[in-house]
Amino acid sequence: MTGAEALVGTLADNGVAACFANPGTSEMHLVTALDGEPRIRSVLCLFEGVATGAADGFARATGMPAMTLLHLGAGYLNAGANIHNAGRANSPMVNVIGDHAVPHLKYDAPLTSDIMGLAGPNSAWIKSADKVGETGKLASEAFAASLGPKRGPVSLLLPADSAWLEGGEKGAVITPPRLRTVSAEKVTAAATAIKAASKPVIVMNGTALTEAGLQAAARLKAAGIRVLTDTFYAKMRRGAGVFAPERMQYFAEGAMADLEGSDLMLVAGTSLPVAFFSYPGKPSLLVPEGCETFDLGGADTDSAATLSALADTLGAMEAAPVEALKQPEAPSGELNAATVGQSLARHMPENALVSDDGVSNGLMSYLPTQNAQPHDWMMLTGGAIGLGMPLALGAAIGAPDRKVICISGDGAGMYTNQALWSMAREGADVTTIVFVNHSYRILNIELYRTGAGNPGPTAKDMLSIGGPDIDWVKLSESMGVPAVEATTAEAFDAALAQAIAAPGPRLIAAVVPG
Amino acid sequence: MTGAEALVGTLADNGVAACFANPGTSEMHLVTALDGEPRIRSVLCLFEGVATGAADGFARATGMPAMTLLHLGAGYLNAGANIHNAGRANSPMVNVIGDHAVPHLKYDAPLTSDIMGLAGPNSAWIKSADKVGETGKLASEAFAASLGPKRGPVSLLLPADSAWLEGGEKGAVITPPRLRTVSAEKVTAAATAIKAASKPVIVMNGTALTEAGLQAAARLKAAGIRVLTDTFYAKMRRGAGVFAPERMQYFAEGAMADLEGSDLMLVAGTSLPVAFFSYPGKPSLLVPEGCETFDLGGADTDSAATLSALADTLGAMEAAPVEALKQPEAPSGELNAATVGQSLARHMPENALVSDDGVSNGLMSYLPTQNAQPHDWMMLTGGAIGLGMPLALGAAIGAPDRKVICISGDGAGMYTNQALWSMAREGADVTTIVFVNHSYRILNIELYRTGAGNPGPTAKDMLSIGGPDIDWVKLSESMGVPAVEATTAEAFDAALAQAIAAPGPRLIAAVVPG
Repeated sequence: MTGAEALVGTLADNGVAACFANPGTSEMHLVTALDGEPRIRSVLCLFEGVATGAADGFARATGMPAMTLLHLGAGYLNAGANIHNAGRANSPMVNVIGDHAVPHLKYDAPLTSDIMGLAGPNSAWIKSADKVGETGKLASEAFAASLGPKRGPVSLLLPADSAWLEGGEKGAVITPPRLRTVSAEKVTAAATAIKAASKPVIVMNGTALTEAGLQAAARLKAAGIRVLTDTFYAKMRRGAGVFAPERMQYFAEGAMADLEGSDLMLVAGTSLPVAFFSYPGKPSLLVPEGCETFDLGGADTDSAATLSALADTLGAMEAAPVEALKQPEAPSGELNAATVGQSLARHMPENALVSDDGVSNGLMSYLPTQNAQPHDWMMLTGGAIGLGMPLALGAAIGAPDRKVICISGDGAGMYTNQALWSMAREGADVTTIVFVNHSYRILNIELYRTGAGNPGPTAKDMLSIGGPDIDWVKLSESMGVPAVEATTAEAFDAALAQAIAAPGPRLIAAVVPG
Repeated sequence: MTGAEALVGTLADNGVAACFANPGTSEMHLVTALDGEPRIRSVLCLFEGVATGAADGFARATGMPAMTLLHLGAGYLNAGANIHNAGRANSPMVNVIGDHAVPHLKYDAPLTSDIMGLAGPNSAWIKSADKVGETGKLASEAFAASLGPKRGPVSLLLPADSAWLEGGEKGAVITPPRLRTVSAEKVTAAATAIKAASKPVIVMNGTALTEAGLQAAARLKAAGIRVLTDTFYAKMRRGAGVFAPERMQYFAEGAMADLEGSDLMLVAGTSLPVAFFSYPGKPSLLVPEGCETFDLGGADTDSAATLSALADTLGAMEAAPVEALKQPEAPSGELNAATVGQSLARHMPENALVSDDGVSNGLMSYLPTQNAQPHDWMMLTGGAIGLGMPLALGAAIGAPDRKVICISGDGAGMYTNQALWSMAREGADVTTIVFVNHSYRILNIELYRTGAGNPGPTAKDMLSIGGPDIDWVKLSESMGVPAVEATTAEAFDAALAQAIAAPGPRLIAAVVPG
């Protein structure tokens, strides 16, 4: 078999079931290898950032890495922002980056670049299969590395000659590494610290946000411990029948005011909370002065198991109440993030997957869904906007039996609008809601918060994406996704009900205040 | 003044006249500094690859670097493919990358990344202004470095605190470095080698493709030397009244057959030609066996001066004829790259700037324009498709008195379709022609050439961008650029005449065979 066949076959043997691809000449043998591999569903993406965002969504929906096909260093760069985001979500992903044939590299042809150098910083693991005999073995290694110990995107470079030559050998089927378990001693020490504290708080992420983790968190809550999630997380179970922890505030000053008086902060499945950005005269580390901290294990640990063991050790047998199903009345009047959230709470079907890249409109549409049908909510963890639609695409490929709902800002959506085309091609069951305010609205807030002064005309222009206003209905239809615009809460509610009832991709341009 | 003001003011003092920006929170003080700097025109781009492609176009049109504003490592990654392309075009560009405040970096906030690591490989120069007092000095250094000795994109990181703090000092106004002049000894040696050769050929690029360089090349041609350009170049003067050199063929086997018998190859303003990709059993270096080679200086040298000195040394006083103006009849029947080229040759106004990202339709639309009104043709030199529309945008900002014509494949255009929005906002005088064949057509050719076998259904799907067909008229209109579709040569000819006559952006979806 060719090196490309060995690579693809090894990933398929290990359970990789999807490839999000934007191939070029150097990947032609990978394309034909995929042609002969029915276990992997190949999805063409018209821009590499769509491919990696989709692989992230696939991983969040299934727990398994997808592969991507990227075209040399330039393809990696295009893919890079959503690789950064996936790294911050601890999402496994095997990025296969085609390169020139090894003997061709020294001639510095136009597409040559230092792929190891530019991809290294955001790769949990990176190697180049410079010999055809290595491609299967390295595919196996790459698959394993994406799952641990540092779970995240890995980079496997495949020179074209290693792909096309015969002499490929399949790599091993490996047992995926598991998240680390925190020691009993550490859990006991945490329990002791909690008993000594007057106002303890736990900040959690990772598997703590699964149903099992939240059950443990509910017991800790009932035992008098404040329970918070990170501001942004990869995925959380929410809705009716699920315990709803609080969420750390985004703005540093708000978070600090809210935490005042806490004398012990434990973190589980995450690290100590920090401000998203720095601002003149504002804190970076979001821990009140004098508050003790306790590290219960980072993202590489099973925080659900940790919290459960901690609740046991504390003898916390009662659980705080779970959320009731509350489907609000149909909203009326102004369409805004809150009324969008109301409609979502009414219409979201059971077990929906939500991809949230809503930026300044995210929070207000998030809150009302706490009492919706049980669902999973996925967020942008890395701060590079433009993840929402690709993430939704990948989630829909990974979980074809679930409705996916995508919430995106208009500024965010423009980064990777090509995702709509792949949704149409694949018939992905995604309802995309774009908050259309013709503005980088978050930046208007941030301009003020950073103390950068009153915006003059140039600054205002840099923060407005109106003039011309983007017609999202036309944009969506141009790529084959049926779309409607809604300007009132009533119209949006009706449009959402329709979109959710119909299988396949739909887009609603939700015109909201700027 | 703040560090941001010192940085922006220093670049303006040095003649930087445009900023292509996609700012975020960490760049808010740069945005307000730009607000107070009327010498720099700020252009908002909805995706960073548009910003850097536009800065490349601005540099090609004006010879001067533009600045860009990028948002941390993620912004750099989005910008990266067109930075790669600009590097391969030797286009100066000052990429200002906002970073977290220095004291905030250690907390590893969500958008933190190793910017020096990931941006280093594609930066001709890279530094971080970690102290407010350095921002002006480093801006001056960055500006100079972009212009030489290795002309190309540079990266200046600006931590947010260096931007917002008072204590900035402006940097020096520097004399831009010039391209190196090749020694008289080397020119004499080249002349001697040419006289001893029976079939000499010069491959040229850089300033050899200016009007002055081509005049020298015409003299060498008349003296019996074959004169070729690289397959892809940053910019060449062409059309009526200009000498037209031949162009190296793209496909290695064609290029090698064509060069057979050459016994001396000189290169001026470039390096020895190499195949764009490697293929099983095909050569990488495009120099016939036994052919001597002579390096007359690379991209860092003034190849126009070199060729002129060489012609003088050879006593080559006659010049080969320049092209005559030949404006063909209106084409009729099938719309294809050749008939598009015919219409271009008829309607292109004097001194137009052409941005060519036409991929498989590029060559056939290029050839007929050899006899059009005099113009400059700009190409994709780095192989990362998706440059065409951003390059055209930047060229139009840099040369507002010239008509810009953009030729793009549909696959290429989708990478950076957001450029259309900036064209609309800025009223950029660009006529964009998208070759709509619903296919990565070049890859169908390359699949065959790489010997990757007959495409099965998955492979075919990976190379087709139909299903759904993209509606380019809707896509363009959604971002405010008026558009029409043409399916016949007659309709296209009429649409092109109209678009060129109208100021401001227009798009023509040219439906051509797949």
